[in-house]
Order: sequence, then C-alpha cells, then structure tokens
Amino acid sequence: MSTARPTPEATPDDESPAERKGARTRRRILEAARRVFADVGYERATIRLIATAAGVDKSSVIQYFGTKQGLFREAVHWDIPTAEVAAEDAEQTAANHVRGMFAAWAADPNSPMAVLLRTSMTSEDAAEILRAHITAQSTDAIAATIDAPDARLRAALAGAMLMGIASQRYILKMPDLKDADVEDILRLVGPAMGTLLDPKSG
Amino acid sequence: MSTARPTPEATPDDESPAERKGARTRRRILEAARRVFADVGYERATIRLIATAAGVDKSSVIQYFGTKQGLFREAVHWDIPTAEVAAEDAEQTAANHVRGMFAAWAADPNSPMAVLLRTSMTSEDAAEILRAHITAQSTDAIAATIDAPDARLRAALAGAMLMGIASQRYILKMPDLKDADVEDILRLVGPAMGTLLDPKSG
Repeated sequence: MSTARPTPEATPDDESPAERKGARTRRRILEAARRVFADVGYERATIRLIATAAGVDKSSVIQYFGTKQGLFREAVHWDIPTAEVAAEDAEQTAANHVRGMFAAWAADPNSPMAVLLRTSMTSEDAAEILRAHITAQSTDAIAATIDAPDARLRAALAGAMLMGIASQRYILKMPDLKDADVEDILRLVGPAMGTLLDPKSG
Repeated sequence: MSTARPTPEATPDDESPAERKGARTRRRILEAARRVFADVGYERATIRLIATAAGVDKSSVIQYFGTKQGLFREAVHWDIPTAEVAAEDAEQTAANHVRGMFAAWAADPNSPMAVLLRTSMTSEDAAEILRAHITAQSTDAIAATIDAPDARLRAALAGAMLMGIASQRYILKMPDLKDADVEDILRLVGPAMGTLLDPKSG
C-alpha cells in the first residue's frame, strides 16, 4: 500500500485482510467526522450524521470509537513533530513551525488542527481539548527552547501569532494572505519571531 | 442619560421620548443579536430567535433592520479609530491597536469583533464581511504607515498576529494568555511588531 499515509491507522504488512479492512473503515470514519464537525460544529454533529457521511452503519462508528467525544478526540488529534521542528536558533524553529502548519493546512482544509480550531470557537468541549493540546505540544515545547525571561508567555504569544496567520490564510482566506508566497511570509515573520523568542540575538 | 455609551444608537438631547424609546429597542435588539449569533452561528440564527432573546416582536426586528443579513451587518460592525491609534512609530501604533482590541474584547465577550470572528469560522457570509472589514480598516490603514517593501503583506501579517493573540486570550482562554498582564504582553509583542512593521528601525 504505497499510497497509505503514515498515520496511526496505517497498517503494518503483517495484518490480516480483515484487519486492513477495519483500518480503512476507521480512516474513512475519521475523515467523514472531520468534515461533519467542521461543517456543523461539535454540538450539532451526531454519530448518525457522521455514519451517513462515511457510508457506514451507526453501530460501526460506536464499535470503533465508542462515543462522539472519543471520536472527536481522535479526529482532531495531531502531533507537532517537536524534535524535527527544533533548529539551532528560535527564528529557524519558528520558520519550521510555519512550514509544517502551512503544509498541513494546505493539504487538507479539514486537517485535524483546522477542524479543532473552528469547532473551538463555538464549543467549550472542543476549546478544552485545544487548550490542553496547544499547551502541551506547542507552548511547553517552544518555552523549553527559550533562554530569556517570560519564556512561557513568549512561547504562548508565538503560538497564538502563528495560529492567527494560518487561520486568516487558510480558513478566513484574507485577500492579502491567501495567495501570498510562503517564502515571502517566512522572510517577514521570521525576524519578528526571532525578536520575540530570542531577544538577545536582535 | 449619563450611562449611555457613545454608540451610533446614542440619542441626542433633542430627540423625542418616542425616538429615545426606539433607540433603546434598537440597541437591545443588537445586543441580543450578538449573543444569538455568537451562540448558534450565523446560519442557525433566526429573526424569531433574536426577537425572543431581545424580548420584542419579530415584526419589530424586521421594522428596524429589514433582513437577518442587515441585522448581522449592524450587529458586528465596529470602527477601528485609525487616526487615534496612529502613533509616531510602528511599534507604538501596534501597541495602541493591542490596547484597543483588548479593551473592547475584555469589556464584552460578545463585542462586534469577537462575534464576527467566531461566526466567520463556520459561515462564508460572515467571513466575507470580516474580509472586507479587516482589509479596509486594518490592512489598508496599517499598510499606509509602513515605509518598507511588502507593506500590504506586513500589515496583513500584523493584523493576523494580533487577532491570533486576542482570540486565544479572550475566546479560547489559553492558560498562559488569559490572565497575563496586558503590559507584559505589550512589552514582548511590541518589539516583534516593530521588527515586522518598521524593519529599518531594528
């Protein structure tokens, strides 16, 4: 299966045909769930609606994911590859973050991060997952690389700024941002992030 | 009426009691509309729901605002006091923008800007209003003050960054941002904005 993406649902070679079919069904349910959550929000999405969108029985969704909350958590889960993103200086690390975020958001308008952000605007349950996820994966990780006072606040501000840029470019499609060249954005944002994250280098 | 806020609906002294009552009703409908749009989104909000929330007849809402779209446009309209915000240097201008945004968002969780941003995440109609508004009031205005290449892109990035910070602080309530001191945020964000908006001063 050379076209399989390296997701947690990717199937190792030693799985049986039934296990592979199960993994495909799971993946199809997760993709349908992201579409439905993005379209109607967390509160209005139902397991029935998601099952219909995925073309499976409601019982299959329950079998694989249990509850709507369990399904949502898996559907919007993503890992920031913190170790891969880390570079020698803060400006380069920030640039790597931007590249990774842009690539994920450009590849799929219903990427886990985009769906979680959109649903968080109207659902406290979704917002709670977003808070925990961003704090653990972004703020903690960036703060650990900062050698300056207010490391946590600097890291949280940097994360908020990057999410502001990504959401205005990909979700809100602001005219001056949606078609801008990624390299132009990096060239302008990089030094500003450097000032925030590594003030001594400025 | 010393408690009246200086909104477009504020009544001059020479208005009749009937006109003053009309202005109060209008204001009550606008406040209820912001609550309803924020809670259920643009698509699901109905004039009936908003009339109920405001404690008025559906016919009054139609009389004052015509359509749901007309009501929405007025409910989420705000003016950035561009002339007042403009300062000698870009860093100070950005700081003034942050102060103004934070004050508006802190004063009312359903401020016009917050409601428009939240509804834009799930409604293309709302997103179109947001795009036009931010481009005209923020990007154009900030770009006009920038004396560097890529002025429009710099201005759009600055606006996106500030909205990212405001939305993560006030809507998503990120733990590292929600209780942070405004002066601490300004102290860290100001130089980064200066680097972006006025690169020659760095």
